[in-house]
Amino acid sequence: VHCLSPRTNLCLAIRDMQGRGYLPDGTTRLGRGGEPIRHFMGTSTFAEYTVMPEIALAKINKDAPLDRACLFACGLSTGIGAALNTAKVAPGSTCVVFGAGMVGLGAVVGCRLAGAERIIAVDLSADRLALTPHHGATETLLGGDDIVERIVELTGGFGADYTFEATGNTTVMRQAVESARMGWGLCTIAGVAGKGETLDVVPRYLITGRRIAGSSFGGCKGRDDVPKLVERYLAGEIDVDSFVSHTLTLDDVNRGFELMERGDGIRSVIDFT
Amino acid sequence: VHCLSPRTNLCLAIRDMQGRGYLPDGTTRLGRGGEPIRHFMGTSTFAEYTVMPEIALAKINKDAPLDRACLFACGLSTGIGAALNTAKVAPGSTCVVFGAGMVGLGAVVGCRLAGAERIIAVDLSADRLALTPHHGATETLLGGDDIVERIVELTGGFGADYTFEATGNTTVMRQAVESARMGWGLCTIAGVAGKGETLDVVPRYLITGRRIAGSSFGGCKGRDDVPKLVERYLAGEIDVDSFVSHTLTLDDVNRGFELMERGDGIRSVIDFT
Repeated sequence: VHCLSPRTNLCLAIRDMQGRGYLPDGTTRLGRGGEPIRHFMGTSTFAEYTVMPEIALAKINKDAPLDRACLFACGLSTGIGAALNTAKVAPGSTCVVFGAGMVGLGAVVGCRLAGAERIIAVDLSADRLALTPHHGATETLLGGDDIVERIVELTGGFGADYTFEATGNTTVMRQAVESARMGWGLCTIAGVAGKGETLDVVPRYLITGRRIAGSSFGGCKGRDDVPKLVERYLAGEIDVDSFVSHTLTLDDVNRGFELMERGDGIRSVIDFT
Repeated sequence: VHCLSPRTNLCLAIRDMQGRGYLPDGTTRLGRGGEPIRHFMGTSTFAEYTVMPEIALAKINKDAPLDRACLFACGLSTGIGAALNTAKVAPGSTCVVFGAGMVGLGAVVGCRLAGAERIIAVDLSADRLALTPHHGATETLLGGDDIVERIVELTGGFGADYTFEATGNTTVMRQAVESARMGWGLCTIAGVAGKGETLDVVPRYLITGRRIAGSSFGGCKGRDDVPKLVERYLAGEIDVDSFVSHTLTLDDVNRGFELMERGDGIRSVIDFT
């Protein structure tokens, strides 16, 4: 239904089986001790060998080192795409990015690539904020209850042309909506909220011209857009190295989850060689 | 700031004084028994003679009867503009309009003028719904708790390309968001909610491609767009007569408010002649 539509990247072709952890033919090809193991996200890349649907693969430039290119499989592309595909940031704009994890850093990169004039990064961690200027942030702010007021003040009383939410926290989502400019400000939600949580929007913010969009995988069509982003990486436009905080072996995969849960680093990469 | 921007119709030029009920020079020119009366919305049209800022006037075709053209000063233009300017409905689309008062009827007209293929009107009143096919509605539905499910079912399990909310009720706003299509559905909020009320959005609806916009005066720049809409009325594209339910004299103005509060009719027009 959606494959040829330029309006969405949400592929439905193999969704039903994928959502249940099966390959398109309804089988699983992984197992341990005779017990079948289901497939995660149609790829199951925490395995030395995996079977996946052909449609789940994208062909990238052979020159790209895999321990760097792998970051484009999710968070980084999500952030960059949120700015380039979903929000379609216009050159010269003022942008605010809430959250400086992988998705937020990607959004900072995307805003820079789109030619934004000001990119304001917001996070609760000064350490994470410190990573953002290298990728294009022009200002950094520690988050807090008064962040909307501070952003409105920094933007001449109006708010930002584009705001991005990359935390999954619904309170931050609301701040992102309210930091968007009257008249045309667009808030793009890229974070995933907890089940049952709602984003509370004061309708007056909408009536006075703000818009809200959401972004899944940054609106990227994986097959077309991931190879293009890898090319931009190879061309030196995106510094992927700086996002790789740890390199682990597959045996250490659980340490990778521990590091993630501690918020230690941006991305841990598993080296299979 | 905004006047020449194609991105918004929110004029700031005289907003401060207008919001407080004064003309741009800070005065009021109306009074009764020596007591000053403030100006409503910068126009104060419930008076035989009024002084208003030149910027608050639009010049329309002289052939247009004033007792019809007056409807373009607010609700009707709001609804038409929500479809044409804010949502920019694409030809062949499926649209849902919640609320069949003046704004909702205007949205039905706007969707028709934009070339929508299906226009589904939703209201709690069968009488109001009965007015909508004449203006372009292809289907009508009585509102209710299960309206989202019914719309999703009527649209092949997806939802509508464009939804419009014209009731001011935040529960209906949420239904309008959730009736929009995954992938690209746009929900345009045109109704004005009560103070302190919030629209609760489940972020998953956004992440899966829906967008939310708001519309004030349908995104119309009054001076440019009202004359154009009047021309479309004169060309026979918009049946304004059918919206005029009652014609009153200025002495009867309070009866007009009573009729409005009872939901009797779409618009009462005051005849000054």
